[in-house]
Amino acid sequence: HRTGIMEAILAEGKDPDDIVEIAKAQVSATGRVLITRLGKDHRAALEAGFDPEELEWSLHRTLAVVHDGTPAPRTGGVVAIITAGTADIDVAEEARMVANEMGCETIAIYDVGVAGFHRLVGEMLKLQEKKPDSIVVAAGREGTLPTVVSGLVDVPVIGLPVSTGYGAGARGEAALLSMLQSCSVLSVVNIDAGFVAGSFAARIANTVAKARNGDVDRE
Amino acid sequence: HRTGIMEAILAEGKDPDDIVEIAKAQVSATGRVLITRLGKDHRAALEAGFDPEELEWSLHRTLAVVHDGTPAPRTGGVVAIITAGTADIDVAEEARMVANEMGCETIAIYDVGVAGFHRLVGEMLKLQEKKPDSIVVAAGREGTLPTVVSGLVDVPVIGLPVSTGYGAGARGEAALLSMLQSCSVLSVVNIDAGFVAGSFAARIANTVAKARNGDVDRE
Amino acid sequence: HRTGIMEAILAEGKDPDDIVEIAKAQVSATGRVLITRLGKDHRAALEAGFDPEELEWSLHRTLAVVHDGTPAPRTGGVVAIITAGTADIDVAEEARMVANEMGCETIAIYDVGVAGFHRLVGEMLKLQEKKPDSIVVAAGREGTLPTVVSGLVDVPVIGLPVSTGYGAGARGEAALLSMLQSCSVLSVVNIDAGFVAGSFAARIANTVAKARNGDVDRE
Amino acid sequence: HRTGIMEAILAEGKDPDDIVEIAKAQVSATGRVLITRLGKDHRAALEAGFDPEELEWSLHRTLAVVHDGTPAPRTGGVVAIITAGTADIDVAEEARMVANEMGCETIAIYDVGVAGFHRLVGEMLKLQEKKPDSIVVAAGREGTLPTVVSGLVDVPVIGLPVSTGYGAGARGEAALLSMLQSCSVLSVVNIDAGFVAGSFAARIANTVAKARNGDVDRE
Amino acid sequence: HRTGIMEAILAEGKDPDDIVEIAKAQVSATGRVLITRLGKDHRAALEAGFDPEELEWSLHRTLAVVHDGTPAPRTGGVVAIITAGTADIDVAEEARMVANEMGCETIAIYDVGVAGFHRLVGEMLKLQEKKPDSIVVAAGREGTLPTVVSGLVDVPVIGLPVSTGYGAGARGEAALLSMLQSCSVLSVVNIDAGFVAGSFAARIANTVAKARNGDVDRE
Amino acid sequence: HRTGIMEAILAEGKDPDDIVEIAKAQVSATGRVLITRLGKDHRAALEAGFDPEELEWSLHRTLAVVHDGTPAPRTGGVVAIITAGTADIDVAEEARMVANEMGCETIAIYDVGVAGFHRLVGEMLKLQEKKPDSIVVAAGREGTLPTVVSGLVDVPVIGLPVSTGYGAGARGEAALLSMLQSCSVLSVVNIDAGFVAGSFAARIANTVAKARNGDVDRE
Amino acid sequence: HRTGIMEAILAEGKDPDDIVEIAKAQVSATGRVLITRLGKDHRAALEAGFDPEELEWSLHRTLAVVHDGTPAPRTGGVVAIITAGTADIDVAEEARMVANEMGCETIAIYDVGVAGFHRLVGEMLKLQEKKPDSIVVAAGREGTLPTVVSGLVDVPVIGLPVSTGYGAGARGEAALLSMLQSCSVLSVVNIDAGFVAGSFAARIANTVAKARNGDVDRE
Amino acid sequence: HRTGIMEAILAEGKDPDDIVEIAKAQVSATGRVLITRLGKDHRAALEAGFDPEELEWSLHRTLAVVHDGTPAPRTGGVVAIITAGTADIDVAEEARMVANEMGCETIAIYDVGVAGFHRLVGEMLKLQEKKPDSIVVAAGREGTLPTVVSGLVDVPVIGLPVSTGYGAGARGEAALLSMLQSCSVLSVVNIDAGFVAGSFAARIANTVAKARNGDVDRE
Ligand SMILES: Nc1ncnc2c1ncn2[C@@H]1O[C@H](COP(=O)(O)O)[C@@H](O)[C@H]1O
Ligand SMILES: Nc1ncnc2c1ncn2[C@@H]1O[C@H](COP(=O)(O)O)[C@@H](O)[C@H]1O
Ligand SMILES: Nc1ncnc2c1ncn2[C@@H]1O[C@H](COP(=O)(O)O)[C@@H](O)[C@H]1O
Ligand SMILES: Nc1ncnc2c1ncn2[C@@H]1O[C@H](COP(=O)(O)O)[C@@H](O)[C@H]1O
Ligand SMILES: [Mg+2]
Ligand SMILES: [Mg+2]
Ligand SMILES: [Mg+2]
Ligand SMILES: [Mg+2]
Ligand SMILES: [Mg+2]
Ligand SMILES: [Mg+2]
Ligand SMILES: [Mg+2]
Ligand SMILES: [Mg+2]
Repeated sequence: HRTGIMEAILAEGKDPDDIVEIAKAQVSATGRVLITRLGKDHRAALEAGFDPEELEWSLHRTLAVVHDGTPAPRTGGVVAIITAGTADIDVAEEARMVANEMGCETIAIYDVGVAGFHRLVGEMLKLQEKKPDSIVVAAGREGTLPTVVSGLVDVPVIGLPVSTGYGAGARGEAALLSMLQSCSVLSVVNIDAGFVAGSFAARIANTVAKARNGDVDRE
Repeated sequence: HRTGIMEAILAEGKDPDDIVEIAKAQVSATGRVLITRLGKDHRAALEAGFDPEELEWSLHRTLAVVHDGTPAPRTGGVVAIITAGTADIDVAEEARMVANEMGCETIAIYDVGVAGFHRLVGEMLKLQEKKPDSIVVAAGREGTLPTVVSGLVDVPVIGLPVSTGYGAGARGEAALLSMLQSCSVLSVVNIDAGFVAGSFAARIANTVAKARNGDVDRE
Repeated sequence: HRTGIMEAILAEGKDPDDIVEIAKAQVSATGRVLITRLGKDHRAALEAGFDPEELEWSLHRTLAVVHDGTPAPRTGGVVAIITAGTADIDVAEEARMVANEMGCETIAIYDVGVAGFHRLVGEMLKLQEKKPDSIVVAAGREGTLPTVVSGLVDVPVIGLPVSTGYGAGARGEAALLSMLQSCSVLSVVNIDAGFVAGSFAARIANTVAKARNGDVDRE
Repeated sequence: HRTGIMEAILAEGKDPDDIVEIAKAQVSATGRVLITRLGKDHRAALEAGFDPEELEWSLHRTLAVVHDGTPAPRTGGVVAIITAGTADIDVAEEARMVANEMGCETIAIYDVGVAGFHRLVGEMLKLQEKKPDSIVVAAGREGTLPTVVSGLVDVPVIGLPVSTGYGAGARGEAALLSMLQSCSVLSVVNIDAGFVAGSFAARIANTVAKARNGDVDRE
Repeated sequence: HRTGIMEAILAEGKDPDDIVEIAKAQVSATGRVLITRLGKDHRAALEAGFDPEELEWSLHRTLAVVHDGTPAPRTGGVVAIITAGTADIDVAEEARMVANEMGCETIAIYDVGVAGFHRLVGEMLKLQEKKPDSIVVAAGREGTLPTVVSGLVDVPVIGLPVSTGYGAGARGEAALLSMLQSCSVLSVVNIDAGFVAGSFAARIANTVAKARNGDVDRE
Repeated sequence: HRTGIMEAILAEGKDPDDIVEIAKAQVSATGRVLITRLGKDHRAALEAGFDPEELEWSLHRTLAVVHDGTPAPRTGGVVAIITAGTADIDVAEEARMVANEMGCETIAIYDVGVAGFHRLVGEMLKLQEKKPDSIVVAAGREGTLPTVVSGLVDVPVIGLPVSTGYGAGARGEAALLSMLQSCSVLSVVNIDAGFVAGSFAARIANTVAKARNGDVDRE
Repeated sequence: HRTGIMEAILAEGKDPDDIVEIAKAQVSATGRVLITRLGKDHRAALEAGFDPEELEWSLHRTLAVVHDGTPAPRTGGVVAIITAGTADIDVAEEARMVANEMGCETIAIYDVGVAGFHRLVGEMLKLQEKKPDSIVVAAGREGTLPTVVSGLVDVPVIGLPVSTGYGAGARGEAALLSMLQSCSVLSVVNIDAGFVAGSFAARIANTVAKARNGDVDRE
Repeated sequence: HRTGIMEAILAEGKDPDDIVEIAKAQVSATGRVLITRLGKDHRAALEAGFDPEELEWSLHRTLAVVHDGTPAPRTGGVVAIITAGTADIDVAEEARMVANEMGCETIAIYDVGVAGFHRLVGEMLKLQEKKPDSIVVAAGREGTLPTVVSGLVDVPVIGLPVSTGYGAGARGEAALLSMLQSCSVLSVVNIDAGFVAGSFAARIANTVAKARNGDVDRE
């Protein structure tokens, strides 16, 4: 773990049976393992290869954690994940599940849109009561939402561009560029890089949690 | 004028003395002429070559109308021009002065920012009382403002990307792409194309004004 | 509807049965719903799920309106849609059906080519008699047609680039860039963005229609 | 001359005095030499270094031929050069002067615009009476003119994109791409490559002239 | 035929049965019709729908001419088509068959490589004896061959980039750019645009042939 | 301050005298003001307009804080800024001074190179003793350093690409892309966006400091 | 063999049966032939068409050498091939098998990662004992490894970017650009161009081996 | 020197007096120092600050070595540097002087063109008699020369793209891409990266020289 990035299994491009085998090996070694970018066949193989209570699924079942009852670690960090639309949810779930495996409590606020500004302000007020330590905001097409959210809160906001849209600036390009050009306090990760966004948000939240827990003394 | 685009003098790259000469010829032919993209030397030459009352200047004196007292035509059309920041004003003034020469009353609302959403909503409420027929919204960097404005009003909104910013997506590229990817009802013109934006907005406003004036009968 | 953009169902990437279900829910709520980017399977599911008289189809059946007899609203606005070739028709139909749902009468002039200039002039003369309030011009490859049309008429023209062609500038890129660089009075939407073009054209037409109907008083 | 491209002196980036010296050497060797891309200082140096009758200038004096009275060769080939606007003239003159030095009679039709289609048709009718063997059409911004010309004539048309315009597709990019995507019979050269366009047009014209003169027998 | 481009049927994306039907209609109208970009199914449909003697095939059967015995016109023009490799042949055949339908005799020299310079010089010497009026040179990857050929012959050479290669500059991009940057006398068409290259080469050859035949008198 | 971004004066493109005037106004309002991207003339004007003890300079005097004795706020947050080379220092100083004005103690470790891995490991060990809450790593050309640093520490690392280098991937493009593609836990800001990097790092550090100080209670 | 590049059969896009036939012809002519980019069907055809002892496979069986017992030539050159991850192996195997066919002993060090710097240093120390004459380093995503390796050894290092990754800079683009911008002594080949990398590395190694063997005398 | 790249002073962007001072310090430390990318003022400062015999200049005096009589090391390696045109010489000289400082004998063959193939073959025959260990080939515009040279010799050839040309593919882009797409055995460095090309070529040559001198024993 020298680079500090969580190990996970990237299912995309791998044989479904191999996934089950790798997952079994990993679970017996560490108790839990996250598997990302599952297709239909991977899903079926996991359902055949494991008992239902050994599996935790993401919202659209494009990710899963396989475990032997070992719970995820708990650091006390809190990460919020917000999406502009429903098309952004799979990428957002990647961020959420990684953050969870890295020990954070996660708060998912999906499909707040950009249109209903008043609804958004309301959601942000409710969110701030839950005191997140960091926030990932996923958005495709023109990628406005992270800019707006960062202007409404005080905690670090990470922009996560999603590969939606067609024509010029499609597949997340406009979203990435407009986040990089944003006038708000914002850092970004690559298009569809939910894994990195979740890891980075969890690293922030865990640093904050440690401070809250007095682990870092600074006399 | 078969393409329906207004004639104007582009000062950029031309000799200051030539500008004065061309302007004189044009004024004696048509009474008025718009000159765009003026540098310091062009400005000085115009001030030396014409009486103050023969000149109408844009806000930062990067455009001028030279005239012999002939007023601009009045169609009854109303065009609003909004900018996100102060860096967008010169390009916005190009749109405003073209629309004015094409016969429209113009309303300039500059530097409303994107941060102060409540201020923006207030400005838009005031604007709607003035019943503009079309709105040009100039914005650089991430170019969010036209999207937001189009969600708040009912009249046609034209996005005008401005060549500000540095790094990836700089010089108006992110702004143009995010306007093209916008989820709102929006059409766009090229980066810094204040002239086209103003002409197009005026064409809409003039079409509306004609209808208002009953020039178009449709029994 | 705060952003003022019409709600429609994007079929692309969705399950045919889900489409039928969503459409049924929407129709019972609002009487009518537009569905875009239909594939073969979506088409079959709609034909199985609804009576023929509940369905209005686009020219190549890539869009459909499902309704319970409720007619589309009528504002009095008039939108024309022109295409350069036959390959541009599906994107043009998107613009046409959106404009229709937004209350406008629509006039489709498809496949006028760029070659036969005399035929084009003739078509434009006939079109002007029908007094459209705005015109969408769809064109792929080098995207010349909107420039030419805007030079022949007085109403606002919206360029709609279409993703045809191969090699450098393919998939609508040359068309988009040449519309952005056009010397005519032209605003543009993104490549294949028939939905936005139709919405924007309808917004213009509805603004004009309101003026024509005296809804906007300006004493 | 193995590549068959004419030798000429590229002034850009060279010392004015060196230009005079190189030109003198070349003239005493071959009687004539073409110098391209002259700046103000190059111009002054040529005027100081040669008698007026030793110099032939292009329209805006950005090219010159220096000679000792030796006339340019005459092959009988005829090349026409057309420009859309005045900004395209310097690049067009490069094509014209190269074609002249390569032995062709040249016909310059500058600034025909794209707007006035009827004027263009008239010009093309007049041009066809002069029976050009090939035509170079220079155009910037959206680069429409070569497509239109090629649809009106029967001889080979070469598109020459010019580096005008700003924003997306600027500096000739849109012009080049739209010529490459053109639906007409058209070949192109690089942006601002008047030298290549003129050479290529002259090669065509000289091939035709040879055939006309019976030099190529094919029994 | 106002644009002067040959009519042909583009099979790509069309139904095989429709192709047969369109071809039948066209043949009974004009005697012959060219069909381009045939897939396996189109090929089978043509073989089922026509007698063998009604069909002329390209080298790899990706194009076909359907005819009722009417021969192609003969103008006396001569067009040569050269390819660097075997991967360039299908695109080259497009050029060759168009030129043939436009009345030209065609000479195909395929797969000369760039390696064997001496073999190339030999082929060019043999070619010059056949006195082609224009030459199309198709090349992918780095696209060197047209530059080399143009340096060895006196007739107009058209560079035809082909979409081969992977990595940076792949799919014909490096080939197109290096032809545009070439130091030889060269004009180019778009990537894979064999149709345009053949039409343009035929237009040159037909212009030369007319001169040879004395059709153009210039006293 | 709704977007939470610090106000500062961007000197680039402004008149030196105006800078002094704006700075004076700001200082009398808030006690301190940061000025970024100073040129030679701006520097001279500041030196003439203020007493030396009213000015705090960055390392190369491309930024300055003007103040009336009011100290910067102190939050207890700690931000480290690391650069790969000396060419990255000006951009890094932007990050450092913003973080300082936002209340953080800053630790600058400049020019650690990428070559001397052992030296880097040593520097990181020393750095971790100082317990930074977040780290900005500036790097140009191939931009490797942030990836390496993030693999050696546990706190959040922000990659800051710098516009150095020539050729393909120049001006920070390769650095930005390789940070976005990094296999480490890393978020990034735009090229040369030291201001955003510093603001974001300070927001993290201030969130951590608040937790350390017990300001956030979460029972 | 005038260009000095090894002949091999590219299976991609070819019929499996044709591959067997071409391979048989080649083997009977030269004793051995390398086949690259094999798919499943090609693999099956080779296994059906040849005896197991006639086949040498690459690690993942995406390449094969077919032979009649003729051994590969031996020059004494030594080429090492290193990969950052497992996804880079197929491209690396292309380099390794070409180098082997060109007469070199090859040393494969796969999946050393970039994280474990100490493991990497250890591997490089072991490698240097084997005295490679040149080293190919394959890496995807941000492509850091070749830069690091070149800083640790004295022999020529060739960077081989691999088309992995998603988002901005994906498919090897960031890897290629960061290798081109590298501060180390490094030359590069195109993305996925294992064949060229192996050929180039073998050419170096063979030049060194010749010198070692005293074939090059230089008195 | 962990990365194995030679230290040199990059003059570009540095103060002329600073250059002299840094050079003096370096010379007294190591006896010699290479300074690259000199402008006019740097040149004058060096001439004022050092005796003529302390300076070795490149062909156009854009590089210099300052020394105290200490000769460059001699390894016995031999590097050849070839350019296509005269515009490529400054970049080639960078490669040549670095290779010289790294201990190699250098052979410069400048301006061989691409046109005169026979002259090129002649030059290559003469070159091979001098038995270079590696060859750098600099070329701009379409960058053909390295491909051709690599096909004529047996030693490693490094392509060095040069930033010449205008239009599409300008500033070395077409040259870089066509070298990356080359069908020959070729590795490349970045555009204008003479420093890297020379270092890499010298590393090859020094590896060969060591083998020749028996320094590497391999029993
Ligand atoms: N969705 C993902 N995005 C980026 N990296 C991932 C993702 N899923 C897994 N990884 C990481 O990718 C690396 C390679 O995964 P694998 O190919 O399964 O060995 C591991 O370090 C994983 O932690
Ligand atoms: N405007 C131009 N565009 C392209 N090539 C040119 C131009 N002017 C001269 N040349 C050619 O550029 C080459 C180098 O010119 P020079 O640098 O003057 O030796 C010669 O082959 C000239 O014929
Ligand atoms: N391979 C081709 N490349 C470019 N244009 C073609 C090709 N084949 C046919 N065409 C032309 O494309 C136009 C549309 O063809 P179609 O879709 O068959 O009506 C006609 O003008 C054809 O002449
Ligand atoms: N022309 C050049 N191209 C690339 N690197 C260079 C060049 N000249 C010097 N360098 C290197 O650039 C680095 C920084 O140089 P400096 O800024 O002078 O310390 C040193 O490693 C030099 O060896
Ligand atoms: Mg979005
Ligand atoms: Mg903005
Ligand atoms: Mg079109
Ligand atoms: Mg034009
Ligand atoms: Mg090729
Ligand atoms: Mg760096
Ligand atoms: Mg890698
Ligand atoms: Mg070259």
